Amino acid sequence: MTTRTEPEAVPSVSPPVARWRHRDVLDLDDFTRDEIETVFEYADRMREIMDRRIARVPALRGYTVVNLFYEPSTRTRASFELAGKALGADVISLQASTSSVVKGESLIDTLRTLRAMGADVIVMRHASAGAAYLAASHTEAAIVNAGDGAHAHPTQALLDLYTMHKHFGDLAGKRVVMVGDISHSRVARSDLWGLWTMGAEVVVCGPPTLLPRGLAEADRPPHAAAALPPVTIETEIERAIVGADVVMALRLQSERQQGGLLPSLHEYALHYQVTASRLARAHPDHLLMHPGPKNEGVEIAGDVARGRHSIIEEQVTNGVAVRMALLYLLTVGAGGTFLGRTEGTPS
Amino acid sequence: MTTRTEPEAVPSVSPPVARWRHRDVLDLDDFTRDEIETVFEYADRMREIMDRRIARVPALRGYTVVNLFYEPSTRTRASFELAGKALGADVISLQASTSSVVKGESLIDTLRTLRAMGADVIVMRHASAGAAYLAASHTEAAIVNAGDGAHAHPTQALLDLYTMHKHFGDLAGKRVVMVGDISHSRVARSDLWGLWTMGAEVVVCGPPTLLPRGLAEADRPPHAAAALPPVTIETEIERAIVGADVVMALRLQSERQQGGLLPSLHEYALHYQVTASRLARAHPDHLLMHPGPKNEGVEIAGDVARGRHSIIEEQVTNGVAVRMALLYLLTVGAGGTFLGRTEGTPS
Amino acid sequence: MTTRTEPEAVPSVSPPVARWRHRDVLDLDDFTRDEIETVFEYADRMREIMDRRIARVPALRGYTVVNLFYEPSTRTRASFELAGKALGADVISLQASTSSVVKGESLIDTLRTLRAMGADVIVMRHASAGAAYLAASHTEAAIVNAGDGAHAHPTQALLDLYTMHKHFGDLAGKRVVMVGDISHSRVARSDLWGLWTMGAEVVVCGPPTLLPRGLAEADRPPHAAAALPPVTIETEIERAIVGADVVMALRLQSERQQGGLLPSLHEYALHYQVTASRLARAHPDHLLMHPGPKNEGVEIAGDVARGRHSIIEEQVTNGVAVRMALLYLLTVGAGGTFLGRTEGTPS
Repeated sequence: MTTRTEPEAVPSVSPPVARWRHRDVLDLDDFTRDEIETVFEYADRMREIMDRRIARVPALRGYTVVNLFYEPSTRTRASFELAGKALGADVISLQASTSSVVKGESLIDTLRTLRAMGADVIVMRHASAGAAYLAASHTEAAIVNAGDGAHAHPTQALLDLYTMHKHFGDLAGKRVVMVGDISHSRVARSDLWGLWTMGAEVVVCGPPTLLPRGLAEADRPPHAAAALPPVTIETEIERAIVGADVVMALRLQSERQQGGLLPSLHEYALHYQVTASRLARAHPDHLLMHPGPKNEGVEIAGDVARGRHSIIEEQVTNGVAVRMALLYLLTVGAGGTFLGRTEGTPS
Repeated sequence: MTTRTEPEAVPSVSPPVARWRHRDVLDLDDFTRDEIETVFEYADRMREIMDRRIARVPALRGYTVVNLFYEPSTRTRASFELAGKALGADVISLQASTSSVVKGESLIDTLRTLRAMGADVIVMRHASAGAAYLAASHTEAAIVNAGDGAHAHPTQALLDLYTMHKHFGDLAGKRVVMVGDISHSRVARSDLWGLWTMGAEVVVCGPPTLLPRGLAEADRPPHAAAALPPVTIETEIERAIVGADVVMALRLQSERQQGGLLPSLHEYALHYQVTASRLARAHPDHLLMHPGPKNEGVEIAGDVARGRHSIIEEQVTNGVAVRMALLYLLTVGAGGTFLGRTEGTPS
Repeated sequence: MTTRTEPEAVPSVSPPVARWRHRDVLDLDDFTRDEIETVFEYADRMREIMDRRIARVPALRGYTVVNLFYEPSTRTRASFELAGKALGADVISLQASTSSVVKGESLIDTLRTLRAMGADVIVMRHASAGAAYLAASHTEAAIVNAGDGAHAHPTQALLDLYTMHKHFGDLAGKRVVMVGDISHSRVARSDLWGLWTMGAEVVVCGPPTLLPRGLAEADRPPHAAAALPPVTIETEIERAIVGADVVMALRLQSERQQGGLLPSLHEYALHYQVTASRLARAHPDHLLMHPGPKNEGVEIAGDVARGRHSIIEEQVTNGVAVRMALLYLLTVGAGGTFLGRTEGTPS
């Protein structure tokens, strides 16, 4: 046995992980049910590590994770930074908007440079849909898409799925209602693919201008499937929410109003805010979720956001565990021949 | 014995520290003499660690410290970052002005998110007086106030007190003269509380427009004591400085002039600059201090800032030790039931 | 033997390194051939470490490296950050343009403050030629110049030299042709000194307005030698490139055009772009280099930048190794009395 993992680091792992074939995490449209369950299984192990007295293991010691953010972010960047450090990786964070991009270096050159410096995993956020795909096709480093334009945000979707799974076990047949700006939300799109794969029944609800049929072609990268997976569309929140097992409120970006898609935030809140009285129509044990950051008083009422059905903070904690799982699976879990590299010559 | 400290890490510590009851460090107005001396005692131990060949101990291994700065800072942020790393904590730094605040997330949501990710200590700087108090009442993470508006900067005050203590031992009866913009200085206010508690005789000196009687009500957070502790007020620097054991020059913010509180920087320097000739009236063994960053030629003359009485760089070094002491006391030193957490389940 | 290095960390090192006398790395004009070869030798050891399964050694454990960047940078900052972490140092990065410089603190005060906090090495980039020299004369921390205005960039030059050395062994008599904006390039200047010291034959080629005779006096710091080392100047790229062992294309800053030194980027590319047809005149086994970030289609054609002669990514990888070597030589390699410090009392 010559794997890189310390024997005690992540118990019972025998790499390479049989059910894992991803070199990158770009979106959930190419994840099987089996692969999503593999992420759940490793996230469980990571949660167990997070609960230890010293919540650190050296599983990724010697690996380098680079956060490359072309858009500002606190929560996603911090989540990956903590996930990497908890596993003993070296993590460096580059806010690209304020650094070499000033000099006009191309994305591909930046990626090749980071790889040549030893980056094993590059976690990347970019304003353009499809940027992570372009990246993955030009570097041997593993690319994790931390958001590409309005297209995808697969690690957020995986943490959403994992959080539902922790409450429900099997997601098949669960009614998940997503409320808000579906068409501009990379979270919603990745969630739709994942929920469909896991057999959930998905309802999307919002004003017609913000529903997927309004999806601009320009936002769809060339590789993407022509259509989203089948969902039920509802424009009346009172009808959508009936019997829901999960209600997920999506952040409403104020730019939408300026773009003429909404008459006013006030009117949006009146018709689509997730409130206690509306949630009364959901299943009595429903879960309330939000990907954050929230606009309380717009897409979600403050009392329910902090109420007993809310699992919003659980989502955040699970986010660290899911990202630990993904960093592990993309490196050690991919076995000794990760990215064509022979076992004796990492990065 | 099941404490988290390595046996050799911080010698002779038996947690929980009996004389320490703080869950947060918000200001010095609620610190007893005993508690301040506890900080001195631990800072001594940390200075001893800093002098070792390898100036690192794993005392805080597994703990996460987040620097959350809503105002720019080099020195305070770097000091906390180095203090945390010297103790083996994972430290992440978020310049909030350039990240998720762009998205308008509320301070309380940001804190809850960071806590849900595993933050044990959040070191926070914010432009609003009272922000750290608000934070402390909404998160289980320990809050360290690294500056809230013009209100308080307790870790700077503790390092000032510790530096004086290293030279004088007991501070009772020592004459400490603070010169400059007292009314807008969070450093001065926290120093005043600490010095008063330790029994020093404090003189504040500056132009009438910058003395505490000019303190705007708006800058005083609701919780604050109605008054500052008793001090002697002097508007003539020549009189104030007579027999001083410590002279502390405060940074003059150039905004004060724009705000109409000062006729000109030149005139301020003429009447209030700490110079060699003025220091001739102080005690022959006086100490010269400055919280930094200095405006040489404005509030302090360059020759005395680098002269033999100056202990300005000692203040900086002691700042790392005092912050190490505080991070330790707020986590391991608070015992196994830190923040309601049972011993076996940190963050 | 009481050196700080772990026995297995960097094999066969017996500090202090006899052939190393630098307290700082400011430029290559004061490096002997012997010293440059010492850097090569240690860079070889560091490359060996980088190829290990766990590419980390604790050689600099307990040392603090501060990246102090007054100009934005991704690649150089990331390279030093990874180099420091690979050796077990604590590394903190300060983007000075966005932090305390807001408060107008002087460069010298910032350096003294960082030293008082425990900085052993300060890696510094600044817009003013000579800033690193000023820094070195005011702090006991080792200063590494990571670029000072248009003056010098010695770590880039050392990685360029090391990369050529790995291919050719001895550089004496090798024909190195640098094409582009020589007079504004800190990379070119440091390369010129290093290549001259190593006995290479250097040709610089570009439009007359961008050649060193056009060098403005203002860009030359007071300490600098009055002249650059002897080079051959060519304005015709076709003639310059004949028989070249190395062709190095330099980045063309678009500001040059605005400054009136170039009629247009298009015309520049027409006359000076490094293309396949021009490279046909070079030695059949020539190497193609570029310090990055590249403007493909301006100073270099895309096909040759990614062609079989290009060693641009090797330069990046070697950059990490050379910086590891320098950090090591400036600290542990300088022996137990580094910077006047006695062996038992590192910062």
